[in-house]
Amino acid sequence: MKAVRFYAAGDVRIEEVSSPQAHDGEVLVAVEWCGICGSDLNEYLGGPIAIPSQKTGPHQLTGEVLPVTMGHEFTGRIVHAPAESSLSPGQSVIIDPRLYCSSCTACSQSATNCCDKIGFCGLSGGGGGLSEMVALPPAMLHTLPDGTDLAAATLIEPLAVAWHAVKDCAFVDLQATSILIIGGGPIGIATIFVLRVWGAKRVFVSEKSRRRKEFLLDLVDSVFDPTEDNVPSKCKELTDGDGVGMVFDCAGSQLGFQDGCDSLKFHGIYANLAVPKGPMRLPFERFIPKELTLKSFLAYDRIDFAETVAAFVEGKFEGVERMITRRVTLDDVVDKGFKELVENPDEHIKILACARNESLL
Amino acid sequence: MKAVRFYAAGDVRIEEVSSPQAHDGEVLVAVEWCGICGSDLNEYLGGPIAIPSQKTGPHQLTGEVLPVTMGHEFTGRIVHAPAESSLSPGQSVIIDPRLYCSSCTACSQSATNCCDKIGFCGLSGGGGGLSEMVALPPAMLHTLPDGTDLAAATLIEPLAVAWHAVKDCAFVDLQATSILIIGGGPIGIATIFVLRVWGAKRVFVSEKSRRRKEFLLDLVDSVFDPTEDNVPSKCKELTDGDGVGMVFDCAGSQLGFQDGCDSLKFHGIYANLAVPKGPMRLPFERFIPKELTLKSFLAYDRIDFAETVAAFVEGKFEGVERMITRRVTLDDVVDKGFKELVENPDEHIKILACARNESLL
Repeated sequence: MKAVRFYAAGDVRIEEVSSPQAHDGEVLVAVEWCGICGSDLNEYLGGPIAIPSQKTGPHQLTGEVLPVTMGHEFTGRIVHAPAESSLSPGQSVIIDPRLYCSSCTACSQSATNCCDKIGFCGLSGGGGGLSEMVALPPAMLHTLPDGTDLAAATLIEPLAVAWHAVKDCAFVDLQATSILIIGGGPIGIATIFVLRVWGAKRVFVSEKSRRRKEFLLDLVDSVFDPTEDNVPSKCKELTDGDGVGMVFDCAGSQLGFQDGCDSLKFHGIYANLAVPKGPMRLPFERFIPKELTLKSFLAYDRIDFAETVAAFVEGKFEGVERMITRRVTLDDVVDKGFKELVENPDEHIKILACARNESLL
Repeated sequence: MKAVRFYAAGDVRIEEVSSPQAHDGEVLVAVEWCGICGSDLNEYLGGPIAIPSQKTGPHQLTGEVLPVTMGHEFTGRIVHAPAESSLSPGQSVIIDPRLYCSSCTACSQSATNCCDKIGFCGLSGGGGGLSEMVALPPAMLHTLPDGTDLAAATLIEPLAVAWHAVKDCAFVDLQATSILIIGGGPIGIATIFVLRVWGAKRVFVSEKSRRRKEFLLDLVDSVFDPTEDNVPSKCKELTDGDGVGMVFDCAGSQLGFQDGCDSLKFHGIYANLAVPKGPMRLPFERFIPKELTLKSFLAYDRIDFAETVAAFVEGKFEGVERMITRRVTLDDVVDKGFKELVENPDEHIKILACARNESLL
């Protein structure tokens, strides 16, 4: 089968590999659609980062090093399910791609996203969504109703990232709090959709890309361009001089960090969903006088993912599929996917690859 | 009267100045004892930092620039009180030295410590405890019972700093949580005393000074020396491999920050009570995988201070006076106070200056 495999920065290859076999109660899934995530792009540009290499040694859960198959935002259809499972061939599924040990302290306290050995199918070995077939344990699958748009459903994964963070911040009165999103990319947009589901009324976003700004105009109360606007001043103008109560950083840049801190009112919450690309200075001179709190988030746990699937199925993220700005084949995923996101970042939000193999369905 | 006034880094002078007059309902207080705080020392070494200068312009609440009288951890006795007040001459008092506007959003929501114009008597103008007399509004005074040890009572101020932070973190089960203190100086020690009042059972501290380590041995479960011990490993050894649930950073160094993060278990709370002396890198690579939270604290509000006074009066900080390692006169406060803390930091925890003027009592 075809698989998109990471060898090194700038070296991602579409190769023919053996199709996976379903062992020990695994389910065989024919991939339908797979999104390219920001972390995939970071690996392409500067990896291996999370991908295990000769230098880091094999991933503790998969035992694999690069080359690994990429892609962790994917949907598909079941081709083979173990007899004893409740799953059956033909069912549509979205994959919770997390790999965790189930035995460390974090796992034993249900914080599986903080597992000592955390990995992701599509980064850490164990196959990936940028291929035709994946064999996975049933616990990684969430079934979707017949007729679900499996392209749009790949967005459940980034939506679950946002769901996890927003849910953890829901001790704040989201209806009464003005919120600033730093970075209107896929995670920023997912955060806006999730915040709306959780009742947030006033949401602003800071984003410089033209295409994304246009998209965001319909979703939020105000869109600021950090290259033109003084974002903290704008936030204060719109909040009677106080500043916003919460920031969700979905960008990971030093200037965004400072803008976010300056936009917050006293006792504000700075929620980080980004993976900063380089060293970040902590602006204590902004944190201390306002007694700001920084919360950092990673992925989601099983309940977050299931709740996001349910919200998606109930239609609570109406219009989210408009995030998809291009669809490409697996063969084209490097040139028209990865390279396109690098060269024309202003034109895209989310690019999906189609791995559909009609003969398997 | 005598007053210790800040002119510039390394230039703190004991001068004769006019005694203050009590205007507009103010209370005249004869200072008894005043502690030298870490922030006073930072001003002496590298100021003006918080002290208003020609460069920053006058403080918005006092209208003053340097030279200003220093000292904000002080006790004294009332010399004159307005007729309409409940205060009377001879009463012992501890001063809440905060200056705030009472009208900004933070003040109007009782977060007076986050006032837009926050200042401190003893740093921002308006007199200071390193002098013989201060005129203050009655709201800044908390009375103490007759017979209170007014030297020990100066420690109420740093204890209130700790009280504010510990109280805000009391959503954590302090009895069940292992806690690491980074830095066993006055604020670190105050935090330990306050944590004990709030029920904390397992407290470790990382401190390198010999004198402080000796002092701490009686107060905590384990004392680590960050120059000799691997603090995160020690914390993990003592917590079944998990790490501590909370860190209170009372040092403000990059290495301490990293040690603290590495000592925390997943979902740990990093409480910052320190004022870092230089730029600090935020170790996101430690924050994200464990989803750590950083909380930053500044001083205390009126309720925190009143609660700390009450706890002190009730004897809940028994033994705290042992923090006082030297007592000097106002005349000697530079040579035997500030310089001593710079030259022999290992020998001291808290140095107090005595401003007692028997003729006024």
